[in-house]
Amino acid sequence: MGVNSNRVEDFSSHRINTEPVMPGMEIHTVCLSPKKTTLQKLKQRLSEIFFPDDPLYRFKNQTWRKKLLLGLQFLFPIFQWAPEYRLKLLRSDIISGLTIASLAIPQGISYAKLANLPPIVGLYSSFVPPLIYAILGSSSHLGVGPVSIASLIMGSMLSETVSPRDEPILYLKLAFTATFFAGLFQASLGLLRLGFVIDFLSKATLVGFMSGAAVIVSLQQLKGLLGISHFTSKMQFIPVMSSVFKHRDEWSWQTIVMGFSFLVFMLTTRHISMKRAKLFWVSAAAPLTSVILSTLLVFCLRSKTHKISFIGHLPKGLNPPSANMLYFSGPDLELAIKTGIVTGILSLTEGISVGRTFAALKNYQVDGNKEMMAIGLMNMAGSCSSCFVTTGSFSRSAVNYNAGAQTAVSNIVMATAVLVTLLFLMPLFYYTPNVILGAIIISAVIGLIDYQAAYCLWKVDKLDFLACLCSFFGVLFISVPLGLGIAVGVSVFKILLHVTRPNSLIMGNIKGTQIYHSLSRYKEASRVPSFLILAIESPIYFANSTYLQERILRWIREEDEWIKANDRSPLKCIILDMTAVTAIDTSGIDLLCELRKMMEKRSLKFVLFSCSLCWQIPSEV
Amino acid sequence: MGVNSNRVEDFSSHRINTEPVMPGMEIHTVCLSPKKTTLQKLKQRLSEIFFPDDPLYRFKNQTWRKKLLLGLQFLFPIFQWAPEYRLKLLRSDIISGLTIASLAIPQGISYAKLANLPPIVGLYSSFVPPLIYAILGSSSHLGVGPVSIASLIMGSMLSETVSPRDEPILYLKLAFTATFFAGLFQASLGLLRLGFVIDFLSKATLVGFMSGAAVIVSLQQLKGLLGISHFTSKMQFIPVMSSVFKHRDEWSWQTIVMGFSFLVFMLTTRHISMKRAKLFWVSAAAPLTSVILSTLLVFCLRSKTHKISFIGHLPKGLNPPSANMLYFSGPDLELAIKTGIVTGILSLTEGISVGRTFAALKNYQVDGNKEMMAIGLMNMAGSCSSCFVTTGSFSRSAVNYNAGAQTAVSNIVMATAVLVTLLFLMPLFYYTPNVILGAIIISAVIGLIDYQAAYCLWKVDKLDFLACLCSFFGVLFISVPLGLGIAVGVSVFKILLHVTRPNSLIMGNIKGTQIYHSLSRYKEASRVPSFLILAIESPIYFANSTYLQERILRWIREEDEWIKANDRSPLKCIILDMTAVTAIDTSGIDLLCELRKMMEKRSLKFVLFSCSLCWQIPSEV
Repeated sequence: MGVNSNRVEDFSSHRINTEPVMPGMEIHTVCLSPKKTTLQKLKQRLSEIFFPDDPLYRFKNQTWRKKLLLGLQFLFPIFQWAPEYRLKLLRSDIISGLTIASLAIPQGISYAKLANLPPIVGLYSSFVPPLIYAILGSSSHLGVGPVSIASLIMGSMLSETVSPRDEPILYLKLAFTATFFAGLFQASLGLLRLGFVIDFLSKATLVGFMSGAAVIVSLQQLKGLLGISHFTSKMQFIPVMSSVFKHRDEWSWQTIVMGFSFLVFMLTTRHISMKRAKLFWVSAAAPLTSVILSTLLVFCLRSKTHKISFIGHLPKGLNPPSANMLYFSGPDLELAIKTGIVTGILSLTEGISVGRTFAALKNYQVDGNKEMMAIGLMNMAGSCSSCFVTTGSFSRSAVNYNAGAQTAVSNIVMATAVLVTLLFLMPLFYYTPNVILGAIIISAVIGLIDYQAAYCLWKVDKLDFLACLCSFFGVLFISVPLGLGIAVGVSVFKILLHVTRPNSLIMGNIKGTQIYHSLSRYKEASRVPSFLILAIESPIYFANSTYLQERILRWIREEDEWIKANDRSPLKCIILDMTAVTAIDTSGIDLLCELRKMMEKRSLKFVLFSCSLCWQIPSEV
Repeated sequence: MGVNSNRVEDFSSHRINTEPVMPGMEIHTVCLSPKKTTLQKLKQRLSEIFFPDDPLYRFKNQTWRKKLLLGLQFLFPIFQWAPEYRLKLLRSDIISGLTIASLAIPQGISYAKLANLPPIVGLYSSFVPPLIYAILGSSSHLGVGPVSIASLIMGSMLSETVSPRDEPILYLKLAFTATFFAGLFQASLGLLRLGFVIDFLSKATLVGFMSGAAVIVSLQQLKGLLGISHFTSKMQFIPVMSSVFKHRDEWSWQTIVMGFSFLVFMLTTRHISMKRAKLFWVSAAAPLTSVILSTLLVFCLRSKTHKISFIGHLPKGLNPPSANMLYFSGPDLELAIKTGIVTGILSLTEGISVGRTFAALKNYQVDGNKEMMAIGLMNMAGSCSSCFVTTGSFSRSAVNYNAGAQTAVSNIVMATAVLVTLLFLMPLFYYTPNVILGAIIISAVIGLIDYQAAYCLWKVDKLDFLACLCSFFGVLFISVPLGLGIAVGVSVFKILLHVTRPNSLIMGNIKGTQIYHSLSRYKEASRVPSFLILAIESPIYFANSTYLQERILRWIREEDEWIKANDRSPLKCIILDMTAVTAIDTSGIDLLCELRKMMEKRSLKFVLFSCSLCWQIPSEV
């Protein structure tokens, strides 16, 4: 980074001054970008915004037939892997498919409960969406189904307005409608290539949000675990806790004993699987084992345990169509759309990040925008076949990956297993106690409380940690959407704060070279007499131009004082190193003009260097 | 900017690798910042955020007595200039003070009308606030008084809920309360050193906003100019225009002739003054001349012109106290606070930017935070003495400056002139026609429609122009606060867009040197065989880490294709130039870890250079 090595541009006259500012310099001139029309610039900018990965590069220089095939493969990734599918892969896929089915069935029932929906809807949601994803999705390891966070949010947002107990049909309609809008929103994000929207949910925000949601979900399960029948439908910490303790007379010891023993069992299996990755099946099988054991227990003791509530009758048969239940007008449409967008964006975030995680482990790439369309279409199809919001679930995908899944066939196997259950095995769940569903939910969400990640945030970046805390407490005490909103606000504020208060550094020469570096970072660098070289480490925007003006004038004032105190030769020239100034807006240009005027009044030379953006400055300034 | 000249850090092992990556390089190591505690870092960060101008530097190394004097001068700038005040300055100050008084009296009455307040309140507001500003303010040229934009917004926001005709007392109370909260908000911004908040109203936003407001204000004056008595209180384009044409039977030709002739007169004088700065007094005197002429005209023809409405009786005497009218509870408190904040922030923006403009012309500096406190205290005091929102007015300050004002004494002279008017001359305004006030307002706001600035925005930055359009049409068709909100949103979105889609460039070596530059910007630069050197031109945040990963992988893919096509030696090493990466958050660190893993799988060496932020990376990654 040498002052010598750049086009030295005298900003005021707007012509290239090839005389070196300092003696003994070589000049390398910046070659200005060729003049482009507004339309060309717009086109380039838009392609950089919406197509950074150049998704059509495969289509270049191909025959028409090949292009057609590639297009088909692009739209339906199944055509990419299906022709190469070999029977020996089938064995692994069947094993992993059955393993995730054993997890999917109890989880499906539990998460439907979490969303205040009939348990059977959870099973429906583990049948149609995985089949659609198998055709459209580009990840081989994603295990598709309902997830805790999206279910929780759908349940809490809808039940604040409509009571699932008093108006079950309206509630169901709203849930399907919200699912439809979630899918529509997700698919449009993908289609419009606006995938970067989910990037604004930073890791810090998500860590806090997930932990807060996990705490709330776990506390809500105390309803089932303690056997309370009158419980608040609110989602905040305080009403939930007061519900728990207000109805102490409803606590039933049989329920508590059963619930907590199975909870301990599942947490122990989870611990074992975490210690040894090979024993992943221990925790994968635990929920189904618990369901079977507890159902048997309740069945055997059914005469003595009338205090333990159980699921009861579940209808046999395939997903009934529900397109007629969608709800496109009426007073609650706004609620459905809002719920759809919030659950849509959260389930999308989970699905994409899970997909990316496992793709990185196997060294293939997942196209975010295509995944969004796949997840969105799967939810839109789901909403027409009695399913609620689904996405790629972390727990299911991890089990799928560890069980050796090779392709999306494992999702098809899982769907087939769920189909068999729906057709023949539903009566077996008659005596399954509700308490076990609570235990399954708690053991699933407890892993979301990631205190290690929070500690890491604290170590690396205090403001990230603050965003994390905001979303945690926001979710816990205020509400899920507001908590998320606050956390996104804090993250964006952090970016803006950095933009508003950018670094500026004094540069000095490294003796014997033509290289210039920051005085504070390089001990070998020393001041150049009569010159003040400042590096500005940020684009110059309206948001920081005032600050930069004050800061630069302060640098000059301090330099003057230092010169006076040390009796050096007076300041002659101010050089601004614009290397890191990668963008400038009208306020930034005003700042430069203003500074130039001030320097002229003090008879100081004012030079910009390494200024690749000068061509933007119109000649009249 | 040479790859050679920086600490080459092998990120994976997190130790300083002093072996050069390329042969024949010298090494200059980065000296890492000394380890600081969280508290020290926080302190440094906060002082950079809140005290960038180091306001207490004058107090360093001074005796206690001197410090006390400096402190007094710091709080009350009058102590700074009053002791040095000489009689020969007084002459200029009296001339300029009387000149702005001649402008202030008609403007005060007109702007009070604009805010739907009794005309006398406008005169009260030109008396107390200038006196307070003379003591507290640090600008010598600011002409203080009510301004069009703030008056307009106060009028439109309050009259949407409370009718000034039906409930005049409540309306007045709300206006004073809003003024109080505006002052409180302004003073707190200054006290908490949050002045950068107003930087978020970028120039582009303000140009659009001012133009839109000027159009709306001018259209509203058609009420007076056409003599319509039934007029909408709404502020949007459509209701205003329909009001104009719905009541065509109320149009009175006498009013129209009088109004438009004086409007043409004032616009002509404005044009003359703009052509020749020396003739500034022509336009400065025009409003008072028009008031006198039109009053005489109405007085002489009073038997024949009953269709021309005039002001009528105005009470004589000084500002009555109004502290008892402030309103700290009740249903409309929220409205008063909201109005206060919106008018407060807008009047602050105008005051500060006007102060800065004239300070720059005379080469002195205005301390933004101190000015905010001065303007805030002046409004708080004003709200207790029957004044509404005041600030530094552009038109008045320009006249003040041109008339040769030397110090804040010109404000005191103006206040004295207003005092004399209030005590003795009020009956003279009895026959002043309302139509002339409309003409004064139009000729004052028409200069705010700055189409040249808008054209300049279009030339320099299309997105800035979009923000400008948004605020213009938002104000015109939706509402003032929403229009402003949309414009601020667009400006912030522009920053975020730049952060979300940062530049990345391929660097090459300049033959015969150890200097590396962008291939696209320097024609002399050429690729280094087997090396891919990428410069990332932005901090790495959660908002761009996904994009950067995709983009870097695409660079590598394209490089591979180029190598294949040109039969060069294969890629061995990827170097990321982090010079412009001035900040990185946890997601950014995750990105680097992820990239390193990917490169390891492809057996590529992955090197970061000029990476001054590495110390932030915890050793566990």
